Amino acid sequence: MRVAVCGLGRMGSAFAAALVGDGHEVAVWNRTPARVDGARTAATPGDAAREAQAVVIVVFDGRAAEEVLFGGAGVAPGAAPGTLVVNATTLSPDESRALARRAASAGLRYLEAPVLGSVPAVRRGALHVLTGGAQEDAADAEPVLRAWSHAGRRQHVGPVGSASALKLVANLALGTTVAALHDAVRLGRALDLDREDVLDVLQNGVCGPLVARKRERLSQGDYGDADFTLAALAKDLALAASAADAPLVMAEAAGALIARAAEHDGHLDVAAMGQA
Amino acid sequence: MRVAVCGLGRMGSAFAAALVGDGHEVAVWNRTPARVDGARTAATPGDAAREAQAVVIVVFDGRAAEEVLFGGAGVAPGAAPGTLVVNATTLSPDESRALARRAASAGLRYLEAPVLGSVPAVRRGALHVLTGGAQEDAADAEPVLRAWSHAGRRQHVGPVGSASALKLVANLALGTTVAALHDAVRLGRALDLDREDVLDVLQNGVCGPLVARKRERLSQGDYGDADFTLAALAKDLALAASAADAPLVMAEAAGALIARAAEHDGHLDVAAMGQA
Repeated sequence: MRVAVCGLGRMGSAFAAALVGDGHEVAVWNRTPARVDGARTAATPGDAAREAQAVVIVVFDGRAAEEVLFGGAGVAPGAAPGTLVVNATTLSPDESRALARRAASAGLRYLEAPVLGSVPAVRRGALHVLTGGAQEDAADAEPVLRAWSHAGRRQHVGPVGSASALKLVANLALGTTVAALHDAVRLGRALDLDREDVLDVLQNGVCGPLVARKRERLSQGDYGDADFTLAALAKDLALAASAADAPLVMAEAAGALIARAAEHDGHLDVAAMGQA
Repeated sequence: MRVAVCGLGRMGSAFAAALVGDGHEVAVWNRTPARVDGARTAATPGDAAREAQAVVIVVFDGRAAEEVLFGGAGVAPGAAPGTLVVNATTLSPDESRALARRAASAGLRYLEAPVLGSVPAVRRGALHVLTGGAQEDAADAEPVLRAWSHAGRRQHVGPVGSASALKLVANLALGTTVAALHDAVRLGRALDLDREDVLDVLQNGVCGPLVARKRERLSQGDYGDADFTLAALAKDLALAASAADAPLVMAEAAGALIARAAEHDGHLDVAAMGQA
């Protein structure tokens, strides 16, 4: 299949490499120069989308996705009618629905496909993928999605917006847990506890999966080469807090805490909240 | 061994039953009438402690523990000199150290032994027990503690106060995770998501162990016959928030949220925060 990937952050690069590995004909574009072995490097999103049957978009936020899709040299002006857009960016449901409407007006098909998990899961083909949109579009995206997720890990949630909604719920839980880790290690330090004892207790407890996944970073104090950045998590918590119909006090408290940390260095991995 | 158990809530009753099962000679006392098969029912803590070699205390909070130990008909006036007090109540480190000092003045030995886990873990003998105090006292408590925890599940943390501190860290993580679950299911409902989809995503995520443990309650809306009550968790979060040297915003937000729910019905299981 001819596939374009727009956005070559850690996830986009891993997506493109997996597609190349599956034998697809891949074109890639990134805002700043970047390349992927075995893929054609395009100068614009529109150029990447030219001749593509599916265009994968995985960028920072809704605004960036809008620019990639509908900017002057964007996907919409470059792609053939009926091209399938697979948007893996984390968006609010409203943002995703707005992009879908505009894509339809431009003659494109639109599937939202946010993912749960990170680069190692892409490499194992075990990423959890949530899809929202037409069933037919999800079926047509299957050759693309199976490059990073096996069938048991793909869940069609419902219409456009529903998968974005479920992704927001998951990232709300991630954000509040990261912020809770922050408080827990601070309390441990204030009470003169051994940091490894604290991490052990947390790893064996209700937020164990986060600590287990981040344990090496937390024990070594290494928060660079992020799997998921503070800036991205702060953005997702703001989306979650504003998407609810009543105040979400934990999401708001976590969002404020993480946004403040992201102002210092938003490129750090979210595990940096567990510094003491 | 002759053991007294003061406090017959769910944990205390399970402790006493496990001690009876291990062949100990057990006396029990509770604030309101309650009994345990195979154990002698005592009228006062002092009566329970008479002739006991070890006195296990597992009550709601520091104030209750103080009354059980040092009240007019308490353990201190009733117990023989050198009796080992094993306090499994969740306390602040300061509260525990104050009780230890007063116990020493009264000629008693004092070991703090808060636990991680709930009644099912007691029954399996797989409770995680943290001990703080003299190494010798922890060794002497071993015949008692092994009734509900095997050797791999016992951790001597340090002097009195250290085990209470580590327990507070664990319960801070529990409380913030419970409150995060509250926000996540609220967001899911606001976004019209299927509740089981939401619970699935949460169960597969960073706070999965809590959702897994509470899934049956959450899916069935059954929060009675609590494993751990809202009132107890609210109390622990207040202890955690006040034990730190800087504001713990997540612990405070979670504490306020859970305390408000506890005002309605503090006897419900903490999973009730996941109602939508």
